Amino acid sequence: MTDTLTSPAGTTDVHDAVTQVAREAKAASRALATATRATKDAALHAMADALVAESARIVQANADDVERGRAGGMKDSLVDRLTLTDARIAAIADALRELAALPDPVGEVVRGSTLPNGLKLRQVRVPMGVVGMIYEARPNVTVDAAGLALKSGNAVILRGGSAAASSNAVIVEVLGEALTSVGLPAALVQSIDAHGRAGAVALMRARGLVDVLVPRGGADLIQTVVRESLVPVIETGVGNCHVFVDASAEVEQAIPIVLNSKTQRTGVCNAAETLLVHADAAPAFLPPALAALAAAGVRIHGCEDTAGYAPAGVEVVPATEEDWATEYLSLDLAVRVVPDLDAALAHIARWSSGHTEAICTRDVRSAERFTTEIDSAALIVNASTRFTDGAEFGLGAEIGISTQKLHARGPMGLGELTTTTWIVHGDGQIRE
Amino acid sequence: MTDTLTSPAGTTDVHDAVTQVAREAKAASRALATATRATKDAALHAMADALVAESARIVQANADDVERGRAGGMKDSLVDRLTLTDARIAAIADALRELAALPDPVGEVVRGSTLPNGLKLRQVRVPMGVVGMIYEARPNVTVDAAGLALKSGNAVILRGGSAAASSNAVIVEVLGEALTSVGLPAALVQSIDAHGRAGAVALMRARGLVDVLVPRGGADLIQTVVRESLVPVIETGVGNCHVFVDASAEVEQAIPIVLNSKTQRTGVCNAAETLLVHADAAPAFLPPALAALAAAGVRIHGCEDTAGYAPAGVEVVPATEEDWATEYLSLDLAVRVVPDLDAALAHIARWSSGHTEAICTRDVRSAERFTTEIDSAALIVNASTRFTDGAEFGLGAEIGISTQKLHARGPMGLGELTTTTWIVHGDGQIRE
Repeated sequence: MTDTLTSPAGTTDVHDAVTQVAREAKAASRALATATRATKDAALHAMADALVAESARIVQANADDVERGRAGGMKDSLVDRLTLTDARIAAIADALRELAALPDPVGEVVRGSTLPNGLKLRQVRVPMGVVGMIYEARPNVTVDAAGLALKSGNAVILRGGSAAASSNAVIVEVLGEALTSVGLPAALVQSIDAHGRAGAVALMRARGLVDVLVPRGGADLIQTVVRESLVPVIETGVGNCHVFVDASAEVEQAIPIVLNSKTQRTGVCNAAETLLVHADAAPAFLPPALAALAAAGVRIHGCEDTAGYAPAGVEVVPATEEDWATEYLSLDLAVRVVPDLDAALAHIARWSSGHTEAICTRDVRSAERFTTEIDSAALIVNASTRFTDGAEFGLGAEIGISTQKLHARGPMGLGELTTTTWIVHGDGQIRE
Repeated sequence: MTDTLTSPAGTTDVHDAVTQVAREAKAASRALATATRATKDAALHAMADALVAESARIVQANADDVERGRAGGMKDSLVDRLTLTDARIAAIADALRELAALPDPVGEVVRGSTLPNGLKLRQVRVPMGVVGMIYEARPNVTVDAAGLALKSGNAVILRGGSAAASSNAVIVEVLGEALTSVGLPAALVQSIDAHGRAGAVALMRARGLVDVLVPRGGADLIQTVVRESLVPVIETGVGNCHVFVDASAEVEQAIPIVLNSKTQRTGVCNAAETLLVHADAAPAFLPPALAALAAAGVRIHGCEDTAGYAPAGVEVVPATEEDWATEYLSLDLAVRVVPDLDAALAHIARWSSGHTEAICTRDVRSAERFTTEIDSAALIVNASTRFTDGAEFGLGAEIGISTQKLHARGPMGLGELTTTTWIVHGDGQIRE
């Protein structure tokens, strides 16, 4: 499972092998494209049941990965994400059953009309075809991705991190057996982990066979895929999110919003990383806000003005430009006092990653300017940044949060794994 | 205007210059993002008026391009596409005025709901930001692209072919003056023609500053952009379109559909290139159809069975696999007799470019299978392939016809030059 196939000859072999995988995925996807929702939901339930039934075998394979990880000095937090238990497998299986309960995006009529010449026109949602996933050492993503792809009518080709290779191999085998048991091709869910890094490269080059590639993982992984892929990519993830406390903000409403945005969960892309405070709000807001943040264990990286408002006992580390740019993903928060809304908008335009920004305000004009002048995927008035989420937005299961503008922006549901076809019915119409 | 800046030093200079152009475009786009429809429509009218007023100057600059083209041995058909006259400029200006009459896609609420926790959620259409266009020697595209980008709230960076450089330089200058006259920044419409090929490369690398790149031109140009661009690309264009005449087709309806699909206009992506005929329909359909096609000047590239049905005097060139793959864009048509619908579907799956396929049939089951089992942007029952077109579909102006699956598929209207933002209004909501 290590990445040894990098000699030119090996690379050619891998290219051929991955091309073959992609061809089989394409063929299998055509069978699934016209499957009914009932068939797809039956497959999801069969997959869930099979995972639970084969739980012991999966946990055993996972133990190999975990042992290898520990031996290689893997961090405890990563070992934890890698580890599967019976209880975790049951939860993963339940997520598949929840997916079965969601509406099927395929077949939805997006637009339609009768044209002046009598042609009946419909734009209908159809599956993409073959979805590629490149991700890191979290075996739950293997099941997640397989389930989301299947429900939206797509075949999936999985390239997981080598750290979870043993777990993924068994999981893919179990899912394949489940698919076969309901009469669907096992080729709907395939792994190319055995082909190492060269396999990932071959997948990124398989334009025409693979319809979209979704990288999930750290910024480095995502940037590599964006740079190297010829297959269209949906970029997910990086969130340098801001909360702006306007002059008119209510202190008692703004403090919980800031706390929740920063501390409710820290390792996620919709957590706040920078707090901007209108100079007029600072005297009343900052002393209690900084005290509350410190009490919650947050390290403050503040500008000079911020430091001036810190109550006794609250330490403020001097902030540099690097702090404005940083997605901490930890109990750290950059804080800056700004002279006005324009300065806040300028700061966000300069430093934001375009994910989510929130404003605390009572002023309709400030709210309006904030939600129309900022170029981010989600703009929130008087609520926590943590709401930018597929489940919170009512989209059901989430594939990721797109920070790009093409195809999908913000939380992506099943619909974002589909494309559309125009279907036209006529009775002999020709163009004049 | 020739592509001389390819030394490493020159490339760096060009990179810096194009980056500066992109920064100015980005800043200008932020000003336009919140402009009202009235402002944008006023700009479009000002642009139209200015083009007409400066018609003589544009025609003069165009004469230089035409002279250079002829001296360089440019084909007559290309010289014709390059040539501007007062009448053509008036028509181009009228297209801008028609654009002004179309609805503004910006601000459209795509979805919206009130969440269980009381959050008010709206997904709203907003401009992409900066659109890059890379195209060939047709100066009308310069105006077209500027108008479409402006109406959808975007700045545009234009890289036209060097063959139209003099025309484009004057046109961009005239459009910039018109923008300034209505209080909008001239940087909304910029050309990088002066930076030659290195400028195009710099534009394709300007990820983060340029939001989407739309190549328009031949297959080579489009493939180069798809391969080299780090900026997301919307691929347009190649159309190897099929018409299938089913066993149950009415001969008197199918013949006009085939003729129209092939001959109404030949150099366009939605013209038919291959005719597939069900073996049961062939005896009644093919003899009169081949006669009608030949009478219309169409050269038939047929399979052996097809040749057997050719009436006296109609020549059938033996077809090879290359014919099935070819987008002729001329009065040529590949014709193949197939044993059944499955064989037709298999042929299309193997050879289609995923643009448009039409079926002539009276059988509902054939129509249903054709429209659900084929993976193309448009599927047409009993009408000409030539209807796959933005204006025909009622979308208004058309940016191109996408044959990719991400973001846009089929005819792209103004809406496809926008993305969306999620806007959330709360009153203190936080996540539990």
